[in-house]
Amino acid sequence: MGSARKANAVVGQSGGPTVVINQSLVGVIETVAKFGEIDRLFGARYGVRGIIENDFMELNGLDSDLLERIADTPASALGSTRDKPDEEYCRRIFAAFAANDVRYFFYIGGNDSADTACIVKEMADEAGHDLKVFHIPKTIDNDLRVTDHCPGYGSAARFVASAVLGDGLDNASLPGIKIDVIMGRNAGWLTAAGMLARRDENDAPNLIYVPEAPVSEDQFVDDIAEIYSRLGRCLVTVSEGIVDENGVGWSEQLLRMAHGAEVERDGHGNLQLSGSGMLGDCIANFAKSEISKRLGGRKIRVRADTFGYLQRSFPGVVSPVDRAEARLAGRRAVEFAAAGDPSGSVAFRRTGKGDDYAVECFRAELKDVARKTKPLPAEYINEAGNGITEEFRTYVSPLTGELPVIGKLT
Amino acid sequence: MGSARKANAVVGQSGGPTVVINQSLVGVIETVAKFGEIDRLFGARYGVRGIIENDFMELNGLDSDLLERIADTPASALGSTRDKPDEEYCRRIFAAFAANDVRYFFYIGGNDSADTACIVKEMADEAGHDLKVFHIPKTIDNDLRVTDHCPGYGSAARFVASAVLGDGLDNASLPGIKIDVIMGRNAGWLTAAGMLARRDENDAPNLIYVPEAPVSEDQFVDDIAEIYSRLGRCLVTVSEGIVDENGVGWSEQLLRMAHGAEVERDGHGNLQLSGSGMLGDCIANFAKSEISKRLGGRKIRVRADTFGYLQRSFPGVVSPVDRAEARLAGRRAVEFAAAGDPSGSVAFRRTGKGDDYAVECFRAELKDVARKTKPLPAEYINEAGNGITEEFRTYVSPLTGELPVIGKLT
Repeated sequence: MGSARKANAVVGQSGGPTVVINQSLVGVIETVAKFGEIDRLFGARYGVRGIIENDFMELNGLDSDLLERIADTPASALGSTRDKPDEEYCRRIFAAFAANDVRYFFYIGGNDSADTACIVKEMADEAGHDLKVFHIPKTIDNDLRVTDHCPGYGSAARFVASAVLGDGLDNASLPGIKIDVIMGRNAGWLTAAGMLARRDENDAPNLIYVPEAPVSEDQFVDDIAEIYSRLGRCLVTVSEGIVDENGVGWSEQLLRMAHGAEVERDGHGNLQLSGSGMLGDCIANFAKSEISKRLGGRKIRVRADTFGYLQRSFPGVVSPVDRAEARLAGRRAVEFAAAGDPSGSVAFRRTGKGDDYAVECFRAELKDVARKTKPLPAEYINEAGNGITEEFRTYVSPLTGELPVIGKLT
Repeated sequence: MGSARKANAVVGQSGGPTVVINQSLVGVIETVAKFGEIDRLFGARYGVRGIIENDFMELNGLDSDLLERIADTPASALGSTRDKPDEEYCRRIFAAFAANDVRYFFYIGGNDSADTACIVKEMADEAGHDLKVFHIPKTIDNDLRVTDHCPGYGSAARFVASAVLGDGLDNASLPGIKIDVIMGRNAGWLTAAGMLARRDENDAPNLIYVPEAPVSEDQFVDDIAEIYSRLGRCLVTVSEGIVDENGVGWSEQLLRMAHGAEVERDGHGNLQLSGSGMLGDCIANFAKSEISKRLGGRKIRVRADTFGYLQRSFPGVVSPVDRAEARLAGRRAVEFAAAGDPSGSVAFRRTGKGDDYAVECFRAELKDVARKTKPLPAEYINEAGNGITEEFRTYVSPLTGELPVIGKLT
């Protein structure tokens, strides 16, 4: 990266990709091009890692057709990272910026990325280096604070709801107990979206478990046995972050039993949950033996699917609203910076509901978005703690868009 | 089911559902309605099981809007079954037909369903009961004999290719070794379709393993290590029916080790492969430790996803050609019967290739479709046995339809 007379800008992408994260990237690229204060725009390869390793791509002058194709392509076009910078790492980021006339930093990611942005901004302020830092929200988990919802969530929610809809019909064709494990380490937003598949009382998902509503193994088995006895089938959606009555993650216990000390954690100290079918398989095996016992030894068909990375990367299953808002978030970040705001995170506020759904963007403070996450509110969880309320349907429907229309013989 | 003056007909659906199996059902319903010889059309609930348990739905006079919605709905609208009738079971089917003036039987399913249809037809002939029996092909496995391809396959192949495309981009964003397990117990047709995601040399899938090309654990690890060393990432698609150099299924060994005598088999004596992430997890754990050893103990990110039931049930990811052909297969079965043919299986023959893709239907003999399956031909597998040839792209592209367009920065 060379120096130049006008200020330079850096954009990066962080954390788990989404199908619309490149919309935000292209929103940044196209808006920077209109903004005279920025000379060169550099894309950091693999997030902050590219910044400290001087691995950049110049993003000026790209063909607009190519940009549109990139915008519609799933996963981070620049590459991503799981690195969570500590103070020293942030110091190296800031040093790279200071050495290269970088005065604008746009970082697309979740709450950890907002945290990194926050720390780097503080260092720049302390050093008297004029650096504008904007966080552009991105997470299929939908668990960022302040904003009404996060770009990336609507499309992942659309995928999950569609998958549960189809799998519920599959489970009605060949009846049994079906466990579907859905992403969401700490928050049940994505798992909750499966409720959109349920139009009639006995439709799948018959039970929904989110981390915000702890459930004991006994209660879990009771719930399934009741529905299976009544309908001859039961589809259960389970968040990968499901916790027991003591607040301990089911996966934590199950993975420890299976792997002992070798449990894999990422740079953030998080347990590896995705990229393995183990939680689903353990739940299925456990449910099979326990429910069979309660039903007098009857043979039961129990299957598990873990939706895995498809939830965040499947091309073509994109919410139109999510697609547009991800683009808008990238544009607004540059516009806030151009207007002179020193830092912030782009957030959404609803200005219209239901069929009149509309949003406006506003600037949130980085520190209010960094670190902590936003759980699924209690009002969206039913009293029994095993389902999602209709209020949530009102919240989530505009974000996913209409699901496929279904016809039934009965 | 009451008797009537004119002959009655029964239609049923069998085996694993697809997203277009109801197109075939509606093709039967709408064509029977035009055909004066049939009085009442009964849908057997849950396949042959509904026939022997007298569980039927009358399908005459249904609203055409409802029929169109049902046609576009994934999974078997009548319910399905895994029952594989033996002689005695077939005798009960035939007895139900004889007692209820059933003179037409349309059975939508795979090779086992063709076998059932074949046996029931022979019994009718022996008893001098005029019964017309037609098998309507359906399988995401694409492994039926005689026909060029099977309804249900194109859409499942579209899902798999899309999933691999997105997951490959995800794995390029956060590089590592990724194992994707794809359905296909005996034949690699569906796994092979993942090759459509590969447009450039280093695109995913980097390696493809199908049951028709046995691979030893050593070779498997060598192949991955070579690509991972070169690219820093490797996405591997593996058919659930992958076999070792002795022809023994990897899953057979892995599941036996994990479950001992408790291995679950279906009514056809098949091992349970779907509805579990175990094969993928075992391969991932094994690959991780072996490849890490070869690379001097280096820490490697290895993940596995098992695409599971989503491959056959995901609504909205439908190949237009597959959708139309599934409908046509149902229509043609009734037309063959109306024209006086006593029995058969609907088959497809290509009459135009590439951009001029076109097919015609013809009548195959039930016995030629029953029981045995059709493996992926050797010409579609590369010499190393770890990839799929470009000839296969020519074969499969018209069946899946165009995949989403992708843009890359590099």
